[in-house]
Amino acid sequence: MDKLLNDLVAIVGPEGMLLGNDVSQRSVDWFTGAPCRAKAIVRPRTTEQLSKVMALCYQADQPVVTHGGMTGVVHGGEASPDELVVSLELMNRIEEIDSVGFTIQVQAGVTLQHVQEAAGEIDMQFPLDLGARGSCTIGGNIATNAGGIRVIRYGMMREQVLGLEAVLSDGTVVSSLNKMLKNNAGYDLKQLFIGSEGTLGIVTRAVLRLQPYMPSEQTALVAVPSFDALTRLLGFVSRELANSLSAFEALWNNHYRLMTTESGKHTPLLADDSPFYAIIETLGLDEERDAEDFSLILEKALEAGLITDAVLASSRAQRQVIWAIREDIEVLVKELKPMFSYDVSLPIPHMQAYAEQLEQNLKAQWPQAAKIVVFGHLGDGNLHIMITVRDESPESRRQVEQLVYHPLKAYGGSISAEHGIGLEKRDYLSITRSSEEIALMKRMKTALDPKGLLNPGKVVALD
Amino acid sequence: MDKLLNDLVAIVGPEGMLLGNDVSQRSVDWFTGAPCRAKAIVRPRTTEQLSKVMALCYQADQPVVTHGGMTGVVHGGEASPDELVVSLELMNRIEEIDSVGFTIQVQAGVTLQHVQEAAGEIDMQFPLDLGARGSCTIGGNIATNAGGIRVIRYGMMREQVLGLEAVLSDGTVVSSLNKMLKNNAGYDLKQLFIGSEGTLGIVTRAVLRLQPYMPSEQTALVAVPSFDALTRLLGFVSRELANSLSAFEALWNNHYRLMTTESGKHTPLLADDSPFYAIIETLGLDEERDAEDFSLILEKALEAGLITDAVLASSRAQRQVIWAIREDIEVLVKELKPMFSYDVSLPIPHMQAYAEQLEQNLKAQWPQAAKIVVFGHLGDGNLHIMITVRDESPESRRQVEQLVYHPLKAYGGSISAEHGIGLEKRDYLSITRSSEEIALMKRMKTALDPKGLLNPGKVVALD
Repeated sequence: MDKLLNDLVAIVGPEGMLLGNDVSQRSVDWFTGAPCRAKAIVRPRTTEQLSKVMALCYQADQPVVTHGGMTGVVHGGEASPDELVVSLELMNRIEEIDSVGFTIQVQAGVTLQHVQEAAGEIDMQFPLDLGARGSCTIGGNIATNAGGIRVIRYGMMREQVLGLEAVLSDGTVVSSLNKMLKNNAGYDLKQLFIGSEGTLGIVTRAVLRLQPYMPSEQTALVAVPSFDALTRLLGFVSRELANSLSAFEALWNNHYRLMTTESGKHTPLLADDSPFYAIIETLGLDEERDAEDFSLILEKALEAGLITDAVLASSRAQRQVIWAIREDIEVLVKELKPMFSYDVSLPIPHMQAYAEQLEQNLKAQWPQAAKIVVFGHLGDGNLHIMITVRDESPESRRQVEQLVYHPLKAYGGSISAEHGIGLEKRDYLSITRSSEEIALMKRMKTALDPKGLLNPGKVVALD
Repeated sequence: MDKLLNDLVAIVGPEGMLLGNDVSQRSVDWFTGAPCRAKAIVRPRTTEQLSKVMALCYQADQPVVTHGGMTGVVHGGEASPDELVVSLELMNRIEEIDSVGFTIQVQAGVTLQHVQEAAGEIDMQFPLDLGARGSCTIGGNIATNAGGIRVIRYGMMREQVLGLEAVLSDGTVVSSLNKMLKNNAGYDLKQLFIGSEGTLGIVTRAVLRLQPYMPSEQTALVAVPSFDALTRLLGFVSRELANSLSAFEALWNNHYRLMTTESGKHTPLLADDSPFYAIIETLGLDEERDAEDFSLILEKALEAGLITDAVLASSRAQRQVIWAIREDIEVLVKELKPMFSYDVSLPIPHMQAYAEQLEQNLKAQWPQAAKIVVFGHLGDGNLHIMITVRDESPESRRQVEQLVYHPLKAYGGSISAEHGIGLEKRDYLSITRSSEEIALMKRMKTALDPKGLLNPGKVVALD
């Protein structure tokens, strides 16, 4: 063991340092199961320990990759044999929960689900929600500015963070554990660390905003006759359910059909021949009245021709059946093998033209093999696009990436809506960010991490 | 006219440059009416013009102070005779409004009210609202991360900004006019310019998020028997009106009494002997039902002893009568002459102890003269505190500032909730921000404005 690792063990103790098999048994990619290749995994128990670890790494020019729950999908956690991994897994405590101020203070390694449950115990909710809730950590949610299905109502992770503590590359602890909704005393430093994927600092603790618990949840799956009707439906429910709309998920026909009749994995609750489907959800306080309101609004949408059919969930089980059509990624992985997965955003009015053109381009290049599935958070401008060309060669992947990413520029879209950049999308960043923007990102990276030791090569590559 | 000014006129034209009396007739402080002392005021019409202006200023080491609507209260717009003012007043166009995507794209010099009205015309709303709406500009709202009365529901200005364009000190245009709720393609650069008071760049254009228009507005003034009851009332209405609560303003007895019975300026809608009052507001869609719900919740609060009396507005005129008690600052200015005005935030549970201690400390030092008035956005942790000691000497001001600011540190509070730092609070920043935080702010300032030309000396002073 080299001197640095010896010095680090002295800080974190033997149980705070993983080596050899304990490192390689861990995966850096839940998709492929690729093993972690770092020289060691360091697991601090406190901010102070991490500060000392980073100060030593800084002196030794030791690059560091931060690990949270490892549920990311853009290779943000990849580590080479000369890199050290810092895992926040032992910093997983809820430190304080304030039912008057509606705040919770946690260490970065706590899971999202743990926070959701702690809020639930005092009749509140933490509204960020995504499929990986049981594994992903708050630190990872912050570092990647996680999104999910309720952004239309509550915003992304950025909007949930009131205060934050981070350790800089040289070990400096920047603690801004603010608990107030309003604090304009100087620059809002926490914004630097939210969504920068561990490249500007390591998040160690956070104060999060809680929301009142909403006992009433209404959910419907509806069939929509055209893209125009889909956008008008979004506008209609955004207005008519302005106080309660919490999700508006759109499914293109190719998605719905694959999930139901083609794969046979989910019950086709509605006929499979509609061009679009949407899952609409509201949150409220009064189950009976909310259900009445909800079905009335859907009736109006039916009369207005915005939808052609609808199924309303009348129980928790039925809600889960509807949501499973949207959330069951495994069916996609199996049916579209080998699958390329994309997460883009663009202004809503351009979505259909973009998706149609993309499908045409794919079919032109791979007339037999190409298959595309489109779904996503319509209200957020966010589409998830799953593509197979039945070939996973690097050349095919690159060709598909070109087709997916390049047209976004003209629409003012983004190559990453919620998954981040990591390594996977780094070399495409210039498609939807200008050279001035990228230069400014590099300027920030250099200012905060002058030696380039934090998650090297992720998001932006320094020259 | 010196060479630089000549070169600048060539860029912005004669009508784009104000000199002499046209400069000094303008005020940099609506409170005192202090005149602008800058060497000139430059008024670009386009981002390109401003870019050229800044490139020349950068070459000439010319410091620049940015002016929006000049409604700030922390001397953020002060300019010395060797400084140049850039005013965005001629960049006041609404460029695009998208009723499908719920966005509006504007130039920075447009007023808040203009944006509110444009949204209203298409049956939407721009929810940020504050008393200065007719004069303050979107660029200023962004630069100061403006707050106001509906933060509890819609967040501060930061949450309303989807995309942003800014010009850096060297003239570089960083354009990130994103329109989507979700965009995680690299660092979220707009955060650098929101709330940094023009010290890191000059905001030129922005894409803002619109919300559905809410036709039903319920408003009540209630009497609250204790601070404990006040915080429990906030919790109660936050839960029971979770989908509609849009404002919760608390008035300490000293505020309510001064505004009504003591000054005689506003009708005492409720007896003036209650320790606290609150203005509660909801926004909704169904006037009749919302009114029923609202009065039912207030009845429950009455039964639970959280309030002792209430008056509900049943017309727009009555709503204005209630809000006038809260918003009429002129009465305070007159009654508390000479008035020192503060805007602090701290965790809600500590507010009353803080306010009581502050009043005691003031009375100890100025037994006869000291008078304090407390009110604010309780749900945001934000208190406005108006104080007079009937003496406006710099020494008295400094002594009062010490009493107001120093105790905040122990509570994890902030010396500025929504007004910003400017020049006025700069030297107090270290009370509620750590040396590590301030060092990081300076690092950011140096990275983005290496010559220190943008709003020099505001927010953080470079050594």
